[in-house]
Order: sequence, then structure tokens, then C-alpha cells
Amino acid sequence: MIYLTRRVEFSASHVLRNPGFSDEENRKIYGECANPHGHGHNYVLEVTLGGEIDPKKGFFMNVVELKHILDEEIIGRLDHRNISVEVPYFREHVATSENIAVWIWRLLVERIDRRMLYRVRLFESSNNYVEYFGE
Amino acid sequence: MIYLTRRVEFSASHVLRNPGFSDEENRKIYGECANPHGHGHNYVLEVTLGGEIDPKKGFFMNVVELKHILDEEIIGRLDHRNISVEVPYFREHVATSENIAVWIWRLLVERIDRRMLYRVRLFESSNNYVEYFGE
Amino acid sequence: MIYLTRRVEFSASHVLRNPGFSDEENRKIYGECANPHGHGHNYVLEVTLGGEIDPKKGFFMNVVELKHILDEEIIGRLDHRNISVEVPYFREHVATSENIAVWIWRLLVERIDRRMLYRVRLFESSNNYVEYFGE
Amino acid sequence: MIYLTRRVEFSASHVLRNPGFSDEENRKIYGECANPHGHGHNYVLEVTLGGEIDPKKGFFMNVVELKHILDEEIIGRLDHRNISVEVPYFREHVATSENIAVWIWRLLVERIDRRMLYRVRLFESSNNYVEYFGE
Amino acid sequence: MIYLTRRVEFSASHVLRNPGFSDEENRKIYGECANPHGHGHNYVLEVTLGGEIDPKKGFFMNVVELKHILDEEIIGRLDHRNISVEVPYFREHVATSENIAVWIWRLLVERIDRRMLYRVRLFESSNNYVEYFGE
Amino acid sequence: MIYLTRRVEFSASHVLRNPGFSDEENRKIYGECANPHGHGHNYVLEVTLGGEIDPKKGFFMNVVELKHILDEEIIGRLDHRNISVEVPYFREHVATSENIAVWIWRLLVERIDRRMLYRVRLFESSNNYVEYFGE
Repeated sequence: MIYLTRRVEFSASHVLRNPGFSDEENRKIYGECANPHGHGHNYVLEVTLGGEIDPKKGFFMNVVELKHILDEEIIGRLDHRNISVEVPYFREHVATSENIAVWIWRLLVERIDRRMLYRVRLFESSNNYVEYFGE
Repeated sequence: MIYLTRRVEFSASHVLRNPGFSDEENRKIYGECANPHGHGHNYVLEVTLGGEIDPKKGFFMNVVELKHILDEEIIGRLDHRNISVEVPYFREHVATSENIAVWIWRLLVERIDRRMLYRVRLFESSNNYVEYFGE
Repeated sequence: MIYLTRRVEFSASHVLRNPGFSDEENRKIYGECANPHGHGHNYVLEVTLGGEIDPKKGFFMNVVELKHILDEEIIGRLDHRNISVEVPYFREHVATSENIAVWIWRLLVERIDRRMLYRVRLFESSNNYVEYFGE
Repeated sequence: MIYLTRRVEFSASHVLRNPGFSDEENRKIYGECANPHGHGHNYVLEVTLGGEIDPKKGFFMNVVELKHILDEEIIGRLDHRNISVEVPYFREHVATSENIAVWIWRLLVERIDRRMLYRVRLFESSNNYVEYFGE
Repeated sequence: MIYLTRRVEFSASHVLRNPGFSDEENRKIYGECANPHGHGHNYVLEVTLGGEIDPKKGFFMNVVELKHILDEEIIGRLDHRNISVEVPYFREHVATSENIAVWIWRLLVERIDRRMLYRVRLFESSNNYVEYFGE
Repeated sequence: MIYLTRRVEFSASHVLRNPGFSDEENRKIYGECANPHGHGHNYVLEVTLGGEIDPKKGFFMNVVELKHILDEEIIGRLDHRNISVEVPYFREHVATSENIAVWIWRLLVERIDRRMLYRVRLFESSNNYVEYFGE
């Protein structure tokens, strides 16, 4: 069993607000991230797969293939976007890094065998990141 | 003469659009950065001052003092903001990194002796940055 | 279950010496780190918590709250300090990264639910780090 | 139980080709990495050990000792080398990062107690890495 | 006048040998880089242009246009290549970082106005880089 | 004319205090850096030389030679040291980054032709650095 990780980057904006909370509650819960005009990040996404090495090829998946999947499924949807406005799911769910990571997992598991998908790690900045393992 | 640089970071969103251009022109000139919903970055700002070392203190300005100026003048205005919407100057000027760097210079030169201010460097991402030397 | 990590930095000095060892033994065991005048590092601390996402808030703990705990419990005690001299515990225990990581864990577990605290990772330099999971 | 990681770097070249495949197959499987003239990387290797802290020394292995083992066993064999040509094992196996990581594990387990060796992580570039845990 | 920098990366191999020197001289001058089988790097190239901001567009050149030029002129020629073997110029000149930087400058000056091209910076590793300003 | 930069790292401690100032003045001028027990950093030093490429060798100085000079002159004196206590010059001068950079320049100019030595850059942390050009 070997683990393969690919890192990609996307630039996006978001707002942390739950319309079910009052303005005051949103400000208290999310601080300056609740600014209704939004703000943004250079997000860094690392996706890790696990598999058994094919002895002839020397890998279980070419990292370029993984890159193509990430470009199609994630970068195409999030890069240079306002996540809270343009991604339907995040019109109804707060676009925290935690929720974005789970949403990325659910998209990837449609394309990648569930037994192979190991971890989604999402950096909002160099100082904060979240990880999701599918359960 | 010695040069002192302080690095700070802010997370902001922006849109690259000149209302004087048509939608098609904006899209052609700015590409996906013209997305009217905006997108964002973890900007990194490096400000460099030059001065003569005070022989008793061993510096010409304490880097903590420079940090306070940057926090007050720049971070307070840009961090967790939508630059194109919330900063009055950028309602009338396109919020490119180039224009933001010149705008930062002009704010800083109100607080820091012009002969001491040497360079403003602004990273929009790890792969792109601009520099302005005041002329 | 999602994992949230916050990274903070502190600048400190230390000496690696066990007074129970002879000078020669200390030099043999700790090499140049045994220099009695001390030396220092820009330590980087990453603390990881695990929890279930609150569906309304979109997280289990605001990363800013985690930052405040780290500032109060760790940064306030270690930043710009001589760990081997100023931290009582390390007057009686060698201030290796391994021991500092365990000491950080014990401080944090007083503030953070044990079931939530997942990992303490401490970088002494860009080339060396230790990790502790509480057992 | 504490985990200790040491990071080292080596510069090497390789070719991804399996002589059992046709040129066309190699090109299809490995893309531009199949270029028979080779290409190269600044590989970054992180090796993680796990052990119990010796209460007198404050560690289970001095990180300098780990560095010496990595220098002797890995850097000496791979740094400034053409892996596909100069390392006998990789004349018969494709020098993918996956295969290199497993090969590094097998060399290290000759020098380091199997119960102590926890993980080999190998970065081919800042965007791709593999991990092997010995099984 | 503002300066714009774009960073790109390429993975390549090379050998440092001057056929006009004996093997012993090559080994003495270039050390382990003289290994005739070659070795490689993840090179990082930063190209800096200087120009006056177009007041309508907010820049003098779109960084995406600069990226396209670098992809066509440099990445296409060097990425996943053996520079010493596959680039005609480096069959007759030693492929040091210094010579590669000057060669990159000469290619770029065919595409970019000489008065706009300011600096070529080439990192061979995170610890070594060279810079060329055209004279 | 080409510029060559080598980066090296050293771990050291220091105290910012001028015995000619009162304790209160030292605390006011240097803040928490005045802590008499000291604190420390992983300093990063970048030294840049400029020269004309030797057409046969493809460089004006081998970067390995520059590394040896830095190891002998700087790393040997500062790494794993308490700069304020163990370096005679800094018993009488405050060990600010500014003063250390000038001191490094003066040591290097004894070994490297003054016309070749271009810049000393010293990072105290990832957020602060100073530069000295010899005048």
C-alpha cells in the first residue's frame, strides 16, 4: 500500500454567514469573516489516494491523471469564483473550509474508487488547514 | 545604509473590471479575473525601508514599529475586505496588484519619511508579484 | 469527523544538558546543542483538533478560538524566552523538542477536551520535527 | 510514543520507461517522463521514526544520528546521480517515486529497528509526494 | 514604473562537463556535478519586467500573457528535458545555472521589448540562485 | 555580469540590550527582545556575489566554494551560539540583525574581493529581514 498526494491551488472568495443567524450572531461566530462583501484566499488543496503499486508500471495511478480529475472536478468549479454565491451548494451551506473539504470529498468519490480515496486536506492560509477522511 | 523589510499578509477579494470597457473587453483583458462575483487571494506584502543604523540602538527603526504602521494603514483597510467594493479608491480604479501596490505606497509615504521608504512588494500568489519604488 | 490545524510560531532559546550527565557525556549525547550558553530557534507549532461539524455553524471550533488558546497557553509562556531557564518544568527536564511537545500537550489538555485534541507537531527547524498524539 | 521526522534533499535524474513496454506504451503511461534522455528533480525525503522518550536524554534517537544514517544509506546512493542508470535496482525497475520510496524503506529497515521505522515520505516536486509505511 | 514578476518551474537534468577539460579537471571544477550520467533539479525561474501602468487597464502587461511567453519559449524547451543533451546550445556550452540564465534572457529578448525585460532569476535549488540583468 | 546567491542557515540566540541604557529604556526600545535571558532564531543568510562568467567554466565562482567560505567564516562562528555572549564584537554592540549583517559583510570582505561582494541578506524570521550592500 502506497499513498500518493497531489497539491493544487485555487483563488476564490467567500463569506461566512448563516442566514438563519442574526447579523450580530454571525459577527460573533465568524468574526471578520462574516463581512457581507466577502474576502478571499489562495486555497491549497492536497488530495491523497492509497493503492497497491502495479509492478509493471511502478504506480497505482499516474499523478497526472489525478491532476486532471482535480482540474475538472474542483479547480473548474472553484478557481476564480465566489464560492458563497456561485456554487449552488454553498448558497445553502456556510462556505467554511470544513464544509468545502467535505464537499470536495463527495465530488471526488464520484470519480475515484472510495477504497482508494484516503484524505482531502485544504489550506485556507499557510496557518490554517482542515482534513477529512470520509467519515 | 541598511535595508529593513517586514512581511505581512492579508486575505481579500477583488474583481478586475473597468466599467469603461464592455463585458467582452473586460473578459478579454482580465480573463477569469473579470468574473463579476469576484475572487480572492492571501496577499503577501513586503515593505522595505532604508536608513542609517543608530550606533546606540543598532537599527534605524524597530521592525515592530514598522509592523504597527502596516497594521494600521494597510491591514486595517484591506484584510478580510472586498477591495473593489469597500475601498473607495478602487471603486474608481481597477484593483490590479499594480494599482494596489501604488496605493499602498501613497498611504505609507504619509506615515514614513519619503527618503526612508524604499520598496513595496505585493504577492498576489506564490507565482506572481509586483514591486513599486515610488517613481 | 473533521480535523482542524492551526500553526503558530515562537522564537526561543534553549540548552540541551542533563545536569545528571558529565560535561563530556552531555557533549557526546547532545553535540553542539549542549553549548551551555544556549542557542535558539524559530519554532513552528501545529496543533490539530478533531470534531464533528456543527451543521449550523459549519465547524466544530472556530480557528480563531484555537489561536487564542495557543496564544494564552503556549506563546505567552515560550515566545522570546529562554526555555531552559525561564520555564520551571525545563529547569528539571531537558528542553528537547520531544519533551517540549509533550509539555505542550499537557497544557492544552487542560483547556481542550481530551477527545478533541488529536496531535501536537513541533518544528525546531525546517528539517526536523516531532509529533505527539497523547499516548 | 513520540514521532521524530528528519528532512533531507537530493538532486537526481531519472527516466520512466519499462523496457517491457513499447515506446508508444511508455509514452502513453508515463507521458513526458518517458523522455529517454531523462530529466530530474530536487527530491525531498522525510523519514519518520516512532519511539518512547528516554527520560534521561529526552529523546529516543538523536536527530543527528538519523541524519547520519540517511546521509550514508540514501544521500550517498542517490544525490547527484542518474537513478535509472546508476542504481542497480532501478535498471530493472521503473524509477517512479513510488518504487523509490519502497526501495528507501528497505534500505533503512536494515539500519533501523523495524518497530521504530514509521514512514518514508518522498516529494518529487512541491506538488507531488508519496508515502510508504512498510506494508 | 512598476515591476511584474512571474515564477514558473521546470524539471530537467544536466551534466557539468567541458569536453575541453580532462576528466580530472572536470571533477575538480564541477565536483559531483561532473557525473557523466547526469543529475537533475526542479528549477524555479522568475522573470521580471518593468513598465508604466496603463491607467485604463491597471497594468502594463497581463501576467497571464507573460506566463504564455514563458511556457512557449522556456518551459517547452527545458521541462522534462536533459538540457546538456537535448538543447543544441548546451551541447557546446556547459549547462551551469549562470549560462542557462543568460540563454533564457536571449530567448526572451526576442519576444519582449528589451527596455521592458528587467531580470532573469534562476533557482537551481532552494539554496542557490543566479540573476542576470542583460549586461 | 551575473549574480550568484547562496543561502545558509544557523540557529543562534541573542539578547537586545545596550548596557548604556536603563532597563526601562531597553524594554521600551527592544520590547520583549530585551529579555535578559535571551531568545533565539533560525537565521537564514543569503550572500550574493557578482562577477563575469568565465566562458570555459560557465561561472565566476563555484557555489560550493562560496558555501565553504560561509561555513568557515559565518556558520562556524554563529551556529548553535549565543551571539550576545560568545561573539566578542557583540559583547560591545547590540546583536540586532542590522549589526549582525554589517559584521558578516566585514568578515566576508576579508575573504572575497570587495568588487565581487554584492549583498548580505539576513532573515531573523520568515517575516523580517535586513540587507546590507557595503556602504
